[in-house]
Amino acid sequence: MILVLRLGHRKNRDARVTTHCGLVARALGADGIILSGERDDKIIESLEKVVEKWGGPFSVSYRRDWKRVMKEYKQKGYTIVHLTMYGEPVQEKIGELRRKDRLLVVVGAEKVPREVYDIADYNIAVGNTPHSEIAALAIFLHEYHEGRELEKKFSNAKLEIEPSPRGKTVRKIGD
Amino acid sequence: MILVLRLGHRKNRDARVTTHCGLVARALGADGIILSGERDDKIIESLEKVVEKWGGPFSVSYRRDWKRVMKEYKQKGYTIVHLTMYGEPVQEKIGELRRKDRLLVVVGAEKVPREVYDIADYNIAVGNTPHSEIAALAIFLHEYHEGRELEKKFSNAKLEIEPSPRGKTVRKIGD
Repeated sequence: MILVLRLGHRKNRDARVTTHCGLVARALGADGIILSGERDDKIIESLEKVVEKWGGPFSVSYRRDWKRVMKEYKQKGYTIVHLTMYGEPVQEKIGELRRKDRLLVVVGAEKVPREVYDIADYNIAVGNTPHSEIAALAIFLHEYHEGRELEKKFSNAKLEIEPSPRGKTVRKIGD
Repeated sequence: MILVLRLGHRKNRDARVTTHCGLVARALGADGIILSGERDDKIIESLEKVVEKWGGPFSVSYRRDWKRVMKEYKQKGYTIVHLTMYGEPVQEKIGELRRKDRLLVVVGAEKVPREVYDIADYNIAVGNTPHSEIAALAIFLHEYHEGRELEKKFSNAKLEIEPSPRGKTVRKIGD
């Protein structure tokens, strides 16, 4: 079970970046995302619509108190992995992390409180240079699953893409 | 040489997503990004500042006419790879693409014109399900470089991170 915790969402400024985090979490084999920061029902709805159309399972929820989420999941036996460019290289730690089957992967917004670094069991960098929490999440999940997440079949999808060298082929499932 | 072409930038709506594309291109081993769509000097400046601080080489430029860019690079011998969820699975094509040493990787915005699919030599999907052009670009580059891009040392950096399990350690280079 892999859940993603998105910290510090700001309603207007972060709408698209947070949506991308949710889409990436679903597409690359996480089981759900917990949003924190400002409550933003539009994002929850838009992610739920993607799950309805393109399949799941994938849970989307909101929790105001991110610190409590981190502590709760730790108590439940999850390993908390915070993605940050200051952390230890993913390529050195991923083998160890693959042996854990319950992860809470924390991705931050602009300013991440000090406590996140302290509560996390691992602070992990996908490249020790500035880039994007969306990309860091993507590569972390891809490395964790060793690429197998790209073959994943989603359940209860209404639509499915038929891969194509040149066109756009979408099949309605059940047709 | 790997260059990224970002299509269809809209000045207000896409500012952060396009910036993330640029940061990811640099962080994961592309040599530069060409921005298209609406001209947006702020983004160019902010990416150039990152290169100044954290090192390069990494080029940032703007070209209004994306079609011309695609055709020009094709003529120069570049292989044009368009990332789209409708395309052929990256895991099936990456071996073939690794043998090309000059790539133009095209990432779209909301609505990608039909011609992009036609001019591209490859239409490649990083998962045939909706997610994020930022994540698709990241995983494509990561797969192309087989993870070695995460070890890359940047030149002429003023700052460098010392990876750390818990803190933030930034070193000024030359100190």
